[in-house]
Amino acid sequence: MYGLIGRMRAVPGQRDALLGLQLEGSGDMPGCLSYIVARDPADADAIWVTEVWTDEASHKASLALPAVQAAIARARPLIAGFDSHTVTEPVAGIGLPKIGTFSPPLASGS
Amino acid sequence: MYGLIGRMRAVPGQRDALLGLQLEGSGDMPGCLSYIVARDPADADAIWVTEVWTDEASHKASLALPAVQAAIARARPLIAGFDSHTVTEPVAGIGLPKIGTFSPPLASGS
Repeated sequence: MYGLIGRMRAVPGQRDALLGLQLEGSGDMPGCLSYIVARDPADADAIWVTEVWTDEASHKASLALPAVQAAIARARPLIAGFDSHTVTEPVAGIGLPKIGTFSPPLASGS
Repeated sequence: MYGLIGRMRAVPGQRDALLGLQLEGSGDMPGCLSYIVARDPADADAIWVTEVWTDEASHKASLALPAVQAAIARARPLIAGFDSHTVTEPVAGIGLPKIGTFSPPLASGS
């Protein structure tokens, strides 16, 4: 799996409008297992986005989807900047489909 | 909703063992909507944990669950430290149950 954790800032006063566009643009994205947008309670303009994809290719392909392109175009004027962008390798967890397997080393077994 | 994004480091060589314990301890946690553990591809010892709960109380209550307590006790010797711990307010997204509603401001409507 391929994951992203990012923090971005909206133009002041436009955070909820930006959140709306992010949700609108993420309706049907093949390979997307999780896409969650969140407010930062410590900063009135900041948004956290956490994503899990089956693989990096799915994520890249999503950026070319018409609905995503349209949402990006409308969102751009509402974005003040990006603070952080981290790639992760999601292993498993609650809220993800049970795909693949993760076998922890024997040392952690009971 | 109540969210957490955290980065922690395992004792060198123990990351997968720690991931296993984290998944083992998160089997049945009331109020947990998403709990995803991920490797950091840029650091062989680092783990990202992203969580979404119905509310903060559910998260706090989970820490008292016997299975969680047992996993924490076994995980502690494998943890080298915590790098960051951020509270978020998840709004909605793919991979979350459709609870509550989010109505973006009219400005973002089509």
